[in-house]
Amino acid sequence: MSSSGFAPRVGPGALAVIFTSQRTAGDDGYAQTAEEMVRLAAQQDGFLGAESARGADGFGLTVSYWRDEAAIRAWREHGDHLAAQAAGKARWYRAYRARICRVEREYGSEG
Amino acid sequence: MSSSGFAPRVGPGALAVIFTSQRTAGDDGYAQTAEEMVRLAAQQDGFLGAESARGADGFGLTVSYWRDEAAIRAWREHGDHLAAQAAGKARWYRAYRARICRVEREYGSEG
Repeated sequence: MSSSGFAPRVGPGALAVIFTSQRTAGDDGYAQTAEEMVRLAAQQDGFLGAESARGADGFGLTVSYWRDEAAIRAWREHGDHLAAQAAGKARWYRAYRARICRVEREYGSEG
Repeated sequence: MSSSGFAPRVGPGALAVIFTSQRTAGDDGYAQTAEEMVRLAAQQDGFLGAESARGADGFGLTVSYWRDEAAIRAWREHGDHLAAQAAGKARWYRAYRARICRVEREYGSEG
């Protein structure tokens, strides 16, 4: 995932994890871990792509796409990711919300 | 929708429209129209909420939530929105992608 990059077509039936968060003030190790998690997620079986943006106000959205529930579960339970999730809850996110959705269709400027 | 605001719980079965875009350079009337569209969308029957973020690089995500396909269709075909979509394609977006997904579950820091 690049912060300026589109995810590829994922196809109907893929799962989208919409993760919305409001950051606390200051970096506090967040940027480095976020980069590591992006790199690590992309190596997981069943990862299809991700898109992410965060505004100057600290409010951000990341959508990651996965082949199936098993892939989402494996990533959620990955050791390094568990540690990052714990730090996120404790320090980096003032609030967050996650929604798991199934892709029905997609289209874009490239057709 | 506020740029620093979470959408409320939408419930399983709601539809999410994930709109990802890379802005062209310059404002060119974009900010005002975007604000108007947010206000107008919130008045539509079947609108459940929205969340949005755009980074300094011009890459942004907006997720809007809708009760059903009819609500999405009515909003897509709304006259003012059609005009905004045309301007978006012609001037404001270098590229965009839309994915329509069905919410399966949701959770967050508020439980």
